[in-house]
Amino acid sequence: MNNGARVSLPVIKRLPKYYRYLKNLRASGVTSISSRELAAHLGTTASQVRQDFNCFGDVNGRQGIGYSVDTLLAMLESLLFGDGDLIPAIQIGAGRLGKAVSRFISRDTNGYRLTAVFDANPSEVGTCIGDTDIKILNIDTLVDFCKEHKPRVAVLCVPRESAQQLTETLVGLGIEGFWNFSHYDMSVDYPHVVVENVHLGDSLMSLGYRLRNEDR
Amino acid sequence: MNNGARVSLPVIKRLPKYYRYLKNLRASGVTSISSRELAAHLGTTASQVRQDFNCFGDVNGRQGIGYSVDTLLAMLESLLFGDGDLIPAIQIGAGRLGKAVSRFISRDTNGYRLTAVFDANPSEVGTCIGDTDIKILNIDTLVDFCKEHKPRVAVLCVPRESAQQLTETLVGLGIEGFWNFSHYDMSVDYPHVVVENVHLGDSLMSLGYRLRNEDR
Repeated sequence: MNNGARVSLPVIKRLPKYYRYLKNLRASGVTSISSRELAAHLGTTASQVRQDFNCFGDVNGRQGIGYSVDTLLAMLESLLFGDGDLIPAIQIGAGRLGKAVSRFISRDTNGYRLTAVFDANPSEVGTCIGDTDIKILNIDTLVDFCKEHKPRVAVLCVPRESAQQLTETLVGLGIEGFWNFSHYDMSVDYPHVVVENVHLGDSLMSLGYRLRNEDR
Repeated sequence: MNNGARVSLPVIKRLPKYYRYLKNLRASGVTSISSRELAAHLGTTASQVRQDFNCFGDVNGRQGIGYSVDTLLAMLESLLFGDGDLIPAIQIGAGRLGKAVSRFISRDTNGYRLTAVFDANPSEVGTCIGDTDIKILNIDTLVDFCKEHKPRVAVLCVPRESAQQLTETLVGLGIEGFWNFSHYDMSVDYPHVVVENVHLGDSLMSLGYRLRNEDR
C-alpha cells in the first residue's frame, strides 16, 4: 500500500495520532475533514498532512469537501493493523512497570496478542498478569516457548544489565521487534531489529531540560 | 549555558542518551571519548555529536584525545538538572500505570521531587504510592494543594475524558510542564506549556506498522 517506498520515522509516528483523532471524529458523526482542520488538531501544517497521506498513495481529499473520514480510517487501519491479524508477542519482566504496560497488549490489543509473560521472581511465577488469565512463566522456559510458539515481538521490562544478554537470545530465537522499556539501546548492536524505545527517565530529563533552560 | 539560542527538540532528546552513556563510561573508568566512538554507541554520526555539543558552547574535543568524559558530564548535568534543585511535581492518577511510573520521580528522581499524588478512587485515597511514604490525596483537594505548594510539573495518568478539563485547571494553577500519559494532546490547546507525551498505544502501533509494512 505504501508503494514499496520506505516511509520516514516521523511520518510513521504520526499515523497513530491521525488514527486516534479520526476515530474520535467518526464516533461524533463527522464524515469529512480538510487537511487544514486535521493539521490544527495535530499541531502540524496542512501541507504536512497532505504529504503524509501522499506517502500511502491513493487517498485524495476533494476540493471544498476534504478527506473522507471513513476512507482515511480504512487506510490507517490497514497500515497499522494489516488485515486484523494480531502479532504474537511475549513480555519479559512482570514487575510493577511490566504489570502496568502489559494491558496495552492484553486489554487494548493495539494489533498484538500477548502469548506469554516471563519473570525470574519465584513469587510472580504462576500468577496471572494484570486482570488477564495469562500466566507468568519461569524465565528458564523462555527458549523452549519461543521455539514452539514463534512470537515475533518481545516487550522488555527488565533492568539494563539483563537486557543485553536477553536481546541476543531473543534475536537468535527469531524475535523481529522489541517494545523496549530497558535502558539498553539494542538498535546499535542489532540494526535490523525494529525497536520502539520507551525510556521514561529520558522523557523526564528532556522535560526538565526545557523547563530549566528555555524561556517560554 | 546554551547561549540563549533555542535548541531543537531532537538535540534535547539526545541529551539524556549522552548522559546515560557517559555515566556508564565514567563508572568503568573511561576518561575521554572521541565523537566517532560516542556516535557509534548512540547510533548517530560523529558530525552530529559535534554539532550537538556545539549548541552548548564551550565544550571542545581535543584532536587525537577526544572529549573529556568529566567535562561532558558536568555540562550535561547542569543542562538536565540545573544546580541540583529538584522541580516540584504532582501526579494525578494512581491506577496501575500511575503506580508504576511514580517511581521515576520518587525513587529515581530524574531531577524532580514528587510532592503529592491525587486520585478520585476512595480505595486508593489515604494509601501510599508505590514504596514511598507519599500519601494519595483526594482529587477534591487538588486546587488548594497547588495554591499552597505551587508545583511546576504535573504527571497525568488519567483517561482522555478527564485530561482535558484537568489540564485547563492545572494550567490555570501555574503548572508549566506535563508528563502526559493520557491521550489528550494538550500542546494543541496550550502551545506554551512544555509537554512530554508518553503515548504507549501509539508506540505499539508504530512498531506494528514497521513490522507489517517494511522489508528488513
